[in-house]
Amino acid sequence: MFEAKIKADTLREIIGVVSTLVEEIKLNIDTDGLSLRAVDPAHVAMVDLTLKAGAFESLKADKCELGVDIDKLKEVLKLAKVGDIISMKHDEDKNRLVVTVENITRRMSLVDTTGMSDPKVPNLNLSAKVKLKASELGQGIRASESVSDHIAIQVSPEGFELKSEGDTDSVELKLSKDMLEELETKEVVKSLYSLEYFSNLIRSVGSAEFVSMFLGNNYPIRIEFDIAGNEGHVIYLLAPRLENG
Amino acid sequence: MFEAKIKADTLREIIGVVSTLVEEIKLNIDTDGLSLRAVDPAHVAMVDLTLKAGAFESLKADKCELGVDIDKLKEVLKLAKVGDIISMKHDEDKNRLVVTVENITRRMSLVDTTGMSDPKVPNLNLSAKVKLKASELGQGIRASESVSDHIAIQVSPEGFELKSEGDTDSVELKLSKDMLEELETKEVVKSLYSLEYFSNLIRSVGSAEFVSMFLGNNYPIRIEFDIAGNEGHVIYLLAPRLENG
Amino acid sequence: MFEAKIKADTLREIIGVVSTLVEEIKLNIDTDGLSLRAVDPAHVAMVDLTLKAGAFESLKADKCELGVDIDKLKEVLKLAKVGDIISMKHDEDKNRLVVTVENITRRMSLVDTTGMSDPKVPNLNLSAKVKLKASELGQGIRASESVSDHIAIQVSPEGFELKSEGDTDSVELKLSKDMLEELETKEVVKSLYSLEYFSNLIRSVGSAEFVSMFLGNNYPIRIEFDIAGNEGHVIYLLAPRLENG
Repeated sequence: MFEAKIKADTLREIIGVVSTLVEEIKLNIDTDGLSLRAVDPAHVAMVDLTLKAGAFESLKADKCELGVDIDKLKEVLKLAKVGDIISMKHDEDKNRLVVTVENITRRMSLVDTTGMSDPKVPNLNLSAKVKLKASELGQGIRASESVSDHIAIQVSPEGFELKSEGDTDSVELKLSKDMLEELETKEVVKSLYSLEYFSNLIRSVGSAEFVSMFLGNNYPIRIEFDIAGNEGHVIYLLAPRLENG
Repeated sequence: MFEAKIKADTLREIIGVVSTLVEEIKLNIDTDGLSLRAVDPAHVAMVDLTLKAGAFESLKADKCELGVDIDKLKEVLKLAKVGDIISMKHDEDKNRLVVTVENITRRMSLVDTTGMSDPKVPNLNLSAKVKLKASELGQGIRASESVSDHIAIQVSPEGFELKSEGDTDSVELKLSKDMLEELETKEVVKSLYSLEYFSNLIRSVGSAEFVSMFLGNNYPIRIEFDIAGNEGHVIYLLAPRLENG
Repeated sequence: MFEAKIKADTLREIIGVVSTLVEEIKLNIDTDGLSLRAVDPAHVAMVDLTLKAGAFESLKADKCELGVDIDKLKEVLKLAKVGDIISMKHDEDKNRLVVTVENITRRMSLVDTTGMSDPKVPNLNLSAKVKLKASELGQGIRASESVSDHIAIQVSPEGFELKSEGDTDSVELKLSKDMLEELETKEVVKSLYSLEYFSNLIRSVGSAEFVSMFLGNNYPIRIEFDIAGNEGHVIYLLAPRLENG
């Protein structure tokens, strides 16, 4: 059993995060809320998203799994205005999700979840932490897009640095300790990442004001931010790229 | 003789309605105003538009017919700002329409109307009538676009229903009697229509707040709405589609 | 040595003017400001732009020449918000321009200026002058785009006329003496120009309220307007087209 009402804006945040990685997603639902995990086809990035019951306008649910086609949810979101509430209900007889926006009802077939993997979040030992404005990070990522396809991220006791090196040009975002919301590291740690994944991620950060990053040396990065007015949380893991040459 | 001034916004409404069906249109003009009729090349839809003299800022005209290329009028409309007045004058010597927006004058050759048909509006016996918000209808049409290429419209003493059935998904807009502006029918009537024509029509409804629909069982639908602040009126007829299978 | 701060909006105006003609530009810089000259590959149009020191927020410079890739400056401008200040500095060791917007630093390689020409502004004897609103000229140009690929500009003691003649249609912008800011001519002068160059120019006029035009009979036209709040000036020369036939 699943019956819920949710703000269109909250559903939009969830879809924004997930849609850059996969086309179909398994939603794990129970009385406490919703959770989902997705790994992109190249196994470079993973997202782990949780939404507390408080993120819903109302939620009645037994423990269940729903396989959803993300494009179909996007189509429903296009009908919703800012502030609209979306109703969702699982029609168990026909295995369809019945989604209602105002006077419109969309019945969508669900995706079989038996073949869908249940990725484990790896346990990473990440010694450095930095918390910065999402808008600052976004500007650094956008600036990098014109010079290279990868970025280096470095955290030191002095501050945060994002660097993108092309053949002739380079881009750098430098934020000293006092320009950061939080900074925890004893040493200099640095890793290289694919710019494309960061670009997609930044577009999906949505309403979050701050982004936390946990990283090590040539190691995966863990990026965390809140959604749904702090009633939801996203953990995003991204594998490092090897240094060129 | 034809010499008129008209609000750019009014001309935009006329062009919006007509341009989804034809590329050239014959305008029938006299002292009482303007009228036009157009049938699309597939003979599935017909529009019958009338504009009273009161819809013009000024109108001096003998009875005449002007064949106009719709794209050329669109080009002129692109030059006009909201609130601009467009002047039009028939240059009979050169058979051109002289259109002025602010200090710009466009002289456009007219289309020969001798080959253009004069469609008759068929007399249909439509027993059911429903009047609803144009915005509600528009949302139902837009929602349907992602699941199918046709819609079923049903009117019963209980209310109005728009339904679109795809292979796996369906969309439904349901408005009960009390959510409608008007409802007149003794029985349940239902017909199937091509979604594409409805999508185009809805985009052209423009400023009308309400849309009236007259329909029967597996029969053409007549859709009516006002333009030009009630000084103009559009009748739109659409042939039904046969049920699949 | 070159070190300057400039409003993003001012840099945007410069780039707007130059980018329709060339992809790389030589900036001539000294303590008094900046100047540049560019001729398009077809040698039909030339731009001569000067920016006084007062157009900069700050300027420290020895006399120098910097060869800049215009697309790279556009990329930097995309990062800047309205009101942002852009810092620029010549890194002489690596021959790079170091450009900073907020916390982002872009280092861009410079273009070798030894091969770049130094066009001379020809001395033209242009007897007629007209000064008009940039927005009026813009509307005339846009209207012409749908009927032809060339325009005729005529100045007489009575006023200004822009005319575009297509095979069936024509467009005309007519401004009488009292609708012009300035008008100086003893005779009727008229020339034909390529519309494409005018279309590009008009898009680049930016914040200028007025445009001055100096012209003769079948002769190049000189168009002048201010940028950077009158701390900069653009002279644009355009060769005439021969009459068709």
